[in-house]
Amino acid sequence: MNARTFKEVRRTYGFDEVAIAPGAITINPELADIDFNLDGMTFSAPVMASAMDAIVSPESAVEFDRHGGLAVLNLEGVQTKYDDPEEVLAEIVASPQEEVTKTFQRVYSAPIKEDLVGERVRQIKQSGAKCAVSVTPANTKRLAPLAVDAGADVLVVQSTVTTARHKSRSIRGLRLPELLEMVNVPVIVGNCATYDVALEIMETGIHGVLVGIGPGAACTTREVTGMGVPQVTSTLDCAAAREEYYRRSGRYVPIVTDGGIRTGGDLCKSFAAGADAVMIGTPFAQTTEAPGQGCNWGMASPDPILPRGTRVNVGMRGSIKQVLYGPSSKSDGTLNLLGALKTCLGYVGAFNIREFHQKAELIFAPSIKTEGKFYQLGMN
Amino acid sequence: MNARTFKEVRRTYGFDEVAIAPGAITINPELADIDFNLDGMTFSAPVMASAMDAIVSPESAVEFDRHGGLAVLNLEGVQTKYDDPEEVLAEIVASPQEEVTKTFQRVYSAPIKEDLVGERVRQIKQSGAKCAVSVTPANTKRLAPLAVDAGADVLVVQSTVTTARHKSRSIRGLRLPELLEMVNVPVIVGNCATYDVALEIMETGIHGVLVGIGPGAACTTREVTGMGVPQVTSTLDCAAAREEYYRRSGRYVPIVTDGGIRTGGDLCKSFAAGADAVMIGTPFAQTTEAPGQGCNWGMASPDPILPRGTRVNVGMRGSIKQVLYGPSSKSDGTLNLLGALKTCLGYVGAFNIREFHQKAELIFAPSIKTEGKFYQLGMN
Amino acid sequence: MNARTFKEVRRTYGFDEVAIAPGAITINPELADIDFNLDGMTFSAPVMASAMDAIVSPESAVEFDRHGGLAVLNLEGVQTKYDDPEEVLAEIVASPQEEVTKTFQRVYSAPIKEDLVGERVRQIKQSGAKCAVSVTPANTKRLAPLAVDAGADVLVVQSTVTTARHKSRSIRGLRLPELLEMVNVPVIVGNCATYDVALEIMETGIHGVLVGIGPGAACTTREVTGMGVPQVTSTLDCAAAREEYYRRSGRYVPIVTDGGIRTGGDLCKSFAAGADAVMIGTPFAQTTEAPGQGCNWGMASPDPILPRGTRVNVGMRGSIKQVLYGPSSKSDGTLNLLGALKTCLGYVGAFNIREFHQKAELIFAPSIKTEGKFYQLGMN
Amino acid sequence: MNARTFKEVRRTYGFDEVAIAPGAITINPELADIDFNLDGMTFSAPVMASAMDAIVSPESAVEFDRHGGLAVLNLEGVQTKYDDPEEVLAEIVASPQEEVTKTFQRVYSAPIKEDLVGERVRQIKQSGAKCAVSVTPANTKRLAPLAVDAGADVLVVQSTVTTARHKSRSIRGLRLPELLEMVNVPVIVGNCATYDVALEIMETGIHGVLVGIGPGAACTTREVTGMGVPQVTSTLDCAAAREEYYRRSGRYVPIVTDGGIRTGGDLCKSFAAGADAVMIGTPFAQTTEAPGQGCNWGMASPDPILPRGTRVNVGMRGSIKQVLYGPSSKSDGTLNLLGALKTCLGYVGAFNIREFHQKAELIFAPSIKTEGKFYQLGMN
Repeated sequence: MNARTFKEVRRTYGFDEVAIAPGAITINPELADIDFNLDGMTFSAPVMASAMDAIVSPESAVEFDRHGGLAVLNLEGVQTKYDDPEEVLAEIVASPQEEVTKTFQRVYSAPIKEDLVGERVRQIKQSGAKCAVSVTPANTKRLAPLAVDAGADVLVVQSTVTTARHKSRSIRGLRLPELLEMVNVPVIVGNCATYDVALEIMETGIHGVLVGIGPGAACTTREVTGMGVPQVTSTLDCAAAREEYYRRSGRYVPIVTDGGIRTGGDLCKSFAAGADAVMIGTPFAQTTEAPGQGCNWGMASPDPILPRGTRVNVGMRGSIKQVLYGPSSKSDGTLNLLGALKTCLGYVGAFNIREFHQKAELIFAPSIKTEGKFYQLGMN
Repeated sequence: MNARTFKEVRRTYGFDEVAIAPGAITINPELADIDFNLDGMTFSAPVMASAMDAIVSPESAVEFDRHGGLAVLNLEGVQTKYDDPEEVLAEIVASPQEEVTKTFQRVYSAPIKEDLVGERVRQIKQSGAKCAVSVTPANTKRLAPLAVDAGADVLVVQSTVTTARHKSRSIRGLRLPELLEMVNVPVIVGNCATYDVALEIMETGIHGVLVGIGPGAACTTREVTGMGVPQVTSTLDCAAAREEYYRRSGRYVPIVTDGGIRTGGDLCKSFAAGADAVMIGTPFAQTTEAPGQGCNWGMASPDPILPRGTRVNVGMRGSIKQVLYGPSSKSDGTLNLLGALKTCLGYVGAFNIREFHQKAELIFAPSIKTEGKFYQLGMN
Repeated sequence: MNARTFKEVRRTYGFDEVAIAPGAITINPELADIDFNLDGMTFSAPVMASAMDAIVSPESAVEFDRHGGLAVLNLEGVQTKYDDPEEVLAEIVASPQEEVTKTFQRVYSAPIKEDLVGERVRQIKQSGAKCAVSVTPANTKRLAPLAVDAGADVLVVQSTVTTARHKSRSIRGLRLPELLEMVNVPVIVGNCATYDVALEIMETGIHGVLVGIGPGAACTTREVTGMGVPQVTSTLDCAAAREEYYRRSGRYVPIVTDGGIRTGGDLCKSFAAGADAVMIGTPFAQTTEAPGQGCNWGMASPDPILPRGTRVNVGMRGSIKQVLYGPSSKSDGTLNLLGALKTCLGYVGAFNIREFHQKAELIFAPSIKTEGKFYQLGMN
Repeated sequence: MNARTFKEVRRTYGFDEVAIAPGAITINPELADIDFNLDGMTFSAPVMASAMDAIVSPESAVEFDRHGGLAVLNLEGVQTKYDDPEEVLAEIVASPQEEVTKTFQRVYSAPIKEDLVGERVRQIKQSGAKCAVSVTPANTKRLAPLAVDAGADVLVVQSTVTTARHKSRSIRGLRLPELLEMVNVPVIVGNCATYDVALEIMETGIHGVLVGIGPGAACTTREVTGMGVPQVTSTLDCAAAREEYYRRSGRYVPIVTDGGIRTGGDLCKSFAAGADAVMIGTPFAQTTEAPGQGCNWGMASPDPILPRGTRVNVGMRGSIKQVLYGPSSKSDGTLNLLGALKTCLGYVGAFNIREFHQKAELIFAPSIKTEGKFYQLGMN
């Protein structure tokens, strides 16, 4: 520590700054097992769909389940505020860009109808699909039991910046151990980005951790508040916490990298950095089944005085199935994400995600995008 | 030190290269206290408005005071050179871009009318607002007493590059201890950018230090002279000087980061780097109350042979109140700067600025702007 | 190793990030000997043409041989799948951009006609030229003997990511020592990018190693799978393996940098990093003799569900001879690559490639391209 | 040294990557003495004009002398190849861009007329101005005596990459000690970029060293051959050699930073890195007196098979006097370069260049240009 400066500044890494080096042995991709285990449940696709109104409806959640992944339904958005969410979604999509923040502020100021919570869960469960729902800490005690009673299989408690300890004047903070006594389903908590917080959250007994603060394309947290950790570093640090917690407790708590994943390359780098699963937004907003109809937006309940969400026109690229498994007639890395992951495991010689964690070497090879093109500084 | 090279080159950091990592505890933003204390005076908004003609008039200074901040009136610009400054401001704004430097050179070659100094101060004081004024070192002995006699509450002595010691052939340099005997109000001095100079200035007994050389958007010092220090590093280094001086003397001299702050993110990073307050230019030039009417320009008295100021068309974004507190219907970080600061303190778990200094971790996560968009290298 | 992060991230370098520093002695370029030796064969041009359908046909291979280099014919592309490859090449070139991946998938799904393997080799040999052919590991045992029996002089076994050990469920992997017993010509194997793999491949007894994973312009491996190593670092690391293997065994196995070389500068940096020869794609796709007629594409057999190749419109710049030796009326570094290499050896004072390896100092001097222009960060 | 990689790669710095930090004392710019001493001759402007046909004619050389600087006349270009150089210059300027390399090749293939060497020198000397001329090593023995006999005051021996030792098959290399016996005027030699070469050249007894390989805007050496050293690093390293040579010999040999200087900022950074003077191209090509009439081109004698020069349209910005001393009505740093230098010395508290060498701190604060704008990464 230099006494003539106030703080040291540590180097961190984002997706565009790293690459994966190949291994000493290669295997055929078909031999790679990419299953994701969450407290005894197994998913053949280690992918969650973000709890965003533009991405997950009861219908798209069922389709997602059919392909082995887990979609998370936002319990504080249009699905539980409106009897007819489709009408409201159409209104958001049709809103002129300059008015869209105001539209958000109006639409999302409507109250949550508690009876709709159970109804949406049952819509998903009726098809036989697994159902995951997301709530923010302030609404967890009220909404989580309703969802679990209706059959929800996984509970996600999510806020922009989560810690195991939160202090508030008006409301007594959510305590995770109490929550675990209240609901009898796996609980995933996030988002966090640092070793200390990930470790502390794991010690409360929860079942999974969402990793990622500031990196998502529809999230403007970093510009508004300066807060954010590049996604490769936050995954690396939370993975170190998972290992440490496993050493101490014998319990393996998976971490889920959430935010900023756009291509197969980003997804593979997340796993190489230590992720057990990923949560994906934009690529699923771009599917034909997405309720956002080619648009995406970030915040379930935009703040009326400090909005950080925005609506992004993302277009359509293919079906959920194509995003996950192809076939693809494009070569830009946006379709067949899991084919890419298996190929990458093959290049590194890893038979499963855990071996990939051990064997995949990350290198610093920065790149930038200009003129809409991905320009790889270190790769030409 | 390598004997085969003449000097070592130290890494420095600017706003776009760092981010703030979240803390282990979070608090509700409403619990965060962001008061700024200057020699016994308390401001509820830790924000000063830059002493630029396009930003601070007596009228906008009063409005600024109403919202808890402190605007600094430039005593060497149109407000003291012209009986009717509005007319001159309009002329500058209407000047074609290719002639604007010449317009500046002509307009600012007019002499300062000493009677206008007191008149402008009284205009502000009549409303009950606090009044801060700025002078350059060469004019301090002449103008500062006039302003203080008229009731000015804070004196800012400002030049591009300030040290405690200046050598000149023609005029005897301003000596800060003498100045402090001459005026009985808090004195803020700047700009400086390094540990040594900040420490030496504090040792003269002054009450605050402006930090920042070269980083402002309307300042071309770095292109013209190569001189400049990125704003995060200059704040970090001057904050270290403040701590050292506090250890030695028991007196806490606040530092004010001045220059280059455009968004809530930049502002939050300034405080994370150790600032006690910030001085802001462009965002206030963009208010409806700004005398620049959507334009901004940098230099109070452009040099006739080496001009470094230029007029920038900055547009209008909202009122002073909206810049500071919202509400905002935009999500680009340019409105509700203090809401952003409180949110950021909440994320880091800091109850006040001093705790934020201790708890906020800065990370190196570079980003660049291309095609008018902010592209975050490390954040995707 | 920091226990609070999962992995360290190593700095790597690409062409645009490095430059060559001049030496203490200079020599006249005419004194520089740039011969390339491969298992007793000598080539006056240390340059191979990539085994891509858009670059190497029997006709262009002969022309390439006339100028001292070695073109590699792809034995798994249009030349061996179609009696009249020209017709198919014309179809690919004429395909609209949005349909080209589908065209690739259809065209390349045709089977290899084994009789065409020998016929293409004989076409080249009839002219007296040396003939090199390339196969993928899965087809090596079937196709390599056919080519060698027909007179092929050099065998290249190439896949995106190659190791000495590959595990597969369906087929028993290619074992390099067995291959060497089967064919009696020099064998070049690749691509690899790391010290360990290069060393292990050399230990199998093969005669040359192709270096480069992910860097080529027509290769999208990094975006799709995240995999890739910047070309300067992969060359530096594999060159270190070559030196180590030479120390252990006394056998010198040349390494060939393959991918991403566009200008004389890139080529010179490859040799400075330790290459004995280079394999070049795009610059030869841009020749008037190229079968791609101004287009280039990357994959011999595009994967039907995870395509990574794409067709790039590269235009035409001159003849093969001009690319290698000039004359040039352009100054962008794309013509007279070997004149550039000799000039560079002269600047460094190296009489041959081996001395250049020893004397050329590489420095980190990053640059970026914007607006189609090469902007050198460190060079202004 | 890591045994698993072939070479280490050292970080280097260019103009856009560094800035100058202010000093602990400031002085008034009028107190700053910027004289440049060359073997007993004193120049009030430490600036040389590049020996390029677009910049220095006998007429512009005289004008340059009037303002205290030293222009270098190229003895191997249009001035000595043509009786009427103006006609040829006009032809180059009028040539369409796509034919300009061919025009260069034709124009510059004409032989040097030896009688014109003396005539051009006398044209300059008649006005009373000091005269500097430049020759390449191959022509030095033939042309240098003619120029010196005609009255040339300074001889510049210049090639792209210069060392004290050069090996050639056809011609015996120029030996600098022999040259010094042959001519009785100060000799400046370059260009070099490294500590070893600068030291070795100084040891031959010459009087000044040109520093800079690859950085100039009209020089494409780095793209063509990969060779180049960023200008701040080459100046730092050659300045270290100057200090070392001074310690050993007691003789002070000034170094002249040549290439890539476009603004006052670049110029100030050159001196901060250790330059005693600078050689400038583009800014003087942009003067109304420049023979290039708004164009600039790099090479006196473009190579017929490996051309590295190109013609750049640089426009006109003002007179030679304005570039050096202003007045300026622009604030982009391109006019009043020496006013900027004196201002910068003032900020650092240096009374002369030698003190500036000691006191100016360089910091790493990278920036990039996009969309024609200078974007300072670290400065916002």
